[in-house]
Amino acid sequence: MVSRRAAALTARPPAIAAAHFRAQADPYHPRRRPGGYLNLGTAENRLVWDLLRPRLAARRPPGPADTQYAPLHGAADFRAALAGFLGGVCRTELDPDHLVVVSGVSAALDVIASVLCDPGDVIIVPAPYYGSFDVDLTGRSGARLLPVPVRPGQAGAAGPAGQAGQAGQAGQAGQADGTGAGDDTGAGGGIARAIDRALADARRRGVTVRAVALASPGNPVGHVYGAPQLRALCEVAAGYGVDVIADEIYANSVFGPAPFVSVLDPRVDAAGAGTRAHLLWGFAKDFGLPGFKVGVLHCPDPEIRAAARAFAYFAPTSTDTQAVLRDLLGDTGWVTGFLAESRRRLGTSYTRATGMLTAAGIPFVPVAAGFSVWADLRAWLAAPTFAAEHALWERIFEELRVNILPGQAFTAPEPGWFRICHATDRAVVAEGLRRIGGLPRAAGPGPAATPVATVAGSAGLRRD
Amino acid sequence: MVSRRAAALTARPPAIAAAHFRAQADPYHPRRRPGGYLNLGTAENRLVWDLLRPRLAARRPPGPADTQYAPLHGAADFRAALAGFLGGVCRTELDPDHLVVVSGVSAALDVIASVLCDPGDVIIVPAPYYGSFDVDLTGRSGARLLPVPVRPGQAGAAGPAGQAGQAGQAGQAGQADGTGAGDDTGAGGGIARAIDRALADARRRGVTVRAVALASPGNPVGHVYGAPQLRALCEVAAGYGVDVIADEIYANSVFGPAPFVSVLDPRVDAAGAGTRAHLLWGFAKDFGLPGFKVGVLHCPDPEIRAAARAFAYFAPTSTDTQAVLRDLLGDTGWVTGFLAESRRRLGTSYTRATGMLTAAGIPFVPVAAGFSVWADLRAWLAAPTFAAEHALWERIFEELRVNILPGQAFTAPEPGWFRICHATDRAVVAEGLRRIGGLPRAAGPGPAATPVATVAGSAGLRRD
Repeated sequence: MVSRRAAALTARPPAIAAAHFRAQADPYHPRRRPGGYLNLGTAENRLVWDLLRPRLAARRPPGPADTQYAPLHGAADFRAALAGFLGGVCRTELDPDHLVVVSGVSAALDVIASVLCDPGDVIIVPAPYYGSFDVDLTGRSGARLLPVPVRPGQAGAAGPAGQAGQAGQAGQAGQADGTGAGDDTGAGGGIARAIDRALADARRRGVTVRAVALASPGNPVGHVYGAPQLRALCEVAAGYGVDVIADEIYANSVFGPAPFVSVLDPRVDAAGAGTRAHLLWGFAKDFGLPGFKVGVLHCPDPEIRAAARAFAYFAPTSTDTQAVLRDLLGDTGWVTGFLAESRRRLGTSYTRATGMLTAAGIPFVPVAAGFSVWADLRAWLAAPTFAAEHALWERIFEELRVNILPGQAFTAPEPGWFRICHATDRAVVAEGLRRIGGLPRAAGPGPAATPVATVAGSAGLRRD
Repeated sequence: MVSRRAAALTARPPAIAAAHFRAQADPYHPRRRPGGYLNLGTAENRLVWDLLRPRLAARRPPGPADTQYAPLHGAADFRAALAGFLGGVCRTELDPDHLVVVSGVSAALDVIASVLCDPGDVIIVPAPYYGSFDVDLTGRSGARLLPVPVRPGQAGAAGPAGQAGQAGQAGQAGQADGTGAGDDTGAGGGIARAIDRALADARRRGVTVRAVALASPGNPVGHVYGAPQLRALCEVAAGYGVDVIADEIYANSVFGPAPFVSVLDPRVDAAGAGTRAHLLWGFAKDFGLPGFKVGVLHCPDPEIRAAARAFAYFAPTSTDTQAVLRDLLGDTGWVTGFLAESRRRLGTSYTRATGMLTAAGIPFVPVAAGFSVWADLRAWLAAPTFAAEHALWERIFEELRVNILPGQAFTAPEPGWFRICHATDRAVVAEGLRRIGGLPRAAGPGPAATPVATVAGSAGLRRD
């Protein structure tokens, strides 16, 4: 017999991981495994292995210090290298002592949630949101998530300006739900307003909200948030005495023209007002090293930091891997070139994938970051329900042998949306999209036929 | 403000780690840092770096699979290598699917405690016990430890038979507390009887005990338990429906003539009777790689295993490090030679250190495993109290600049015992012991003058 907590945790295995490993165990190959799975469900960047391979092979042999006990929140030299790198990304100086290193960003999310929340406390998440937040933020902490539906338009992101023609073509421009988004433009965007309403409502109901958590850039929808949006969000949170958890794991995977803005950027933080924003980052996405399990949490507050270090004790990172990544970050010329080339390839991959979707008549939300496309298969649902979405997902997985993730895995506010990852083998993406594109639309019309928002009107928000 | 749980965890930092990092930050050097710390407090095996260095330098460059997502409870090929190696150590066949890999044995202890215990449940630990059990087994799980005092004689271990003369010389043979240990000899030894009494008492008081946890071989006292002792312990636990957590991290660090016996050994497990024994192991001690943070938990029970995997999600291990250790374990000739030479060097180091203690007139408990000596400084205490022990520890740390750990850090049943680690630089050990040996004994007689037990009478227990 296991503990109640263990039973509860076991009862909800992370759906994304389960589908990933099933697909990975039987991968498609045109000749050797024609009946295998085409895995477009896992957000891995497999476009950069040719760049990583020689750099990893050139690693220095470990020294004694790389094998011995080191501070369990990260070795000092590794945190120094991280502070230098992340300081550049965030455009602000970071103190290595403010960084807490743990074995992956999932662990970092668990740590910050456990530091901030007692069991039952609430973390607000704009939805759709990264599906693993469910387990990462609540599985051990006992916190609860309160999803706040945000329409693609409200998030205030747009397709890459350089691909405006393609976005217009692909998106069949219009509002996602036909209600109009006029009230959601302007500095701050609708996301802050939606969070404000949710916080006010929670306060009325006596619910203890401890944080707002979001992926920035977005996931599953690869929005790039601008400084005014982030500032508005932080100001709203601060007004309620609520912290902000910013999972910036895709910070260097922005391929659109508007640059990434960190929650620590002075243009965001300038607002002050007691904002407590917690940045999380890792090597899984930007460096294409998801197996290395290195997550970083930025903790300027001494009390939060002491608590985060206490939890980091239970999820430390291998000094061997820290040494490899310390040397890699120290090779700043290589890092700059690698990240630039990675972004270029992501942009090309995105353009190619969205071109195929457009050719197949499948709408999508144009984005400027990340490894995936948020595709609108509402017109392919037999009914506008999550049961119908699940049936469609099952058909795509079992019959078409394509692993993509349904919107429900991301708590999408309406059924019919799917996350399709494109940052992998070009032939696998092409074959997977060919199969999905061959699916017949559902018979009747209905809400599923409503075209997707392109929200080009708010593109300017990302520029200042 | 942090959560109540975070505040509680922060309020009790692991004492051993704190002293380690303070000593490490200012290490002694005869010329460059004569005022620095001599660190005999950390249980690290620094005698084998010359053997490790070339093997680690010969690592293969990582392949793509060594960088991508792998099962978060350990990659299949790494678990296969581990099962082969640990199966040999435990003299039984192990299923790779029964192994759960996490980022260190501290994490593995946290996982098994969280799987077995709801907050408030009790884990019984024979005392003195490994000091970090306090944080590892209770910090996140919310379990409580119930120490059961066991006299050195009761644990049933003895000095290496080959060093009997030295042990006799050093130990000034006699019983630790003068009560006689006649009732504690024979198959099973006193430890099982002490646990039995504690379990009976807990049942009477309505306390929910979920497990008995012990380090085997022992730490801080490097006892090697024999099959009859372990069987008796497992039978007692099974009789109360209580699991056994066996931290076997020193399994391959036995330098005495009696071989290590795992809790999974058929001679132990043969008893059956529904015993649920959980083996934990890692690379920190036996392979001298404490920074690599690789812990293993053996989970044959499907329900326990599913729960352990769910918790492992929050403390995964770097695939890079897994690949290095997979290849290392695959080099079975190297492993056999390395472990044999490591044991030889540990024995030499132990003999040298205990010789110095003997010359200084400091008694100790003869042992056959591990990196440390359990030294009896009771005659150096100003009074037979833990306050006096702390004062002596402080004097040794601050004035002599020697880091050793007081018995209180291991919940020793009586004050005056210290753990002195010897598996490090020979000159550092010699200088540290020279300084300790120069300390004047306390003025008066009293319990502190009682000689230490050598428990030679139970040596036969380890032989079958």
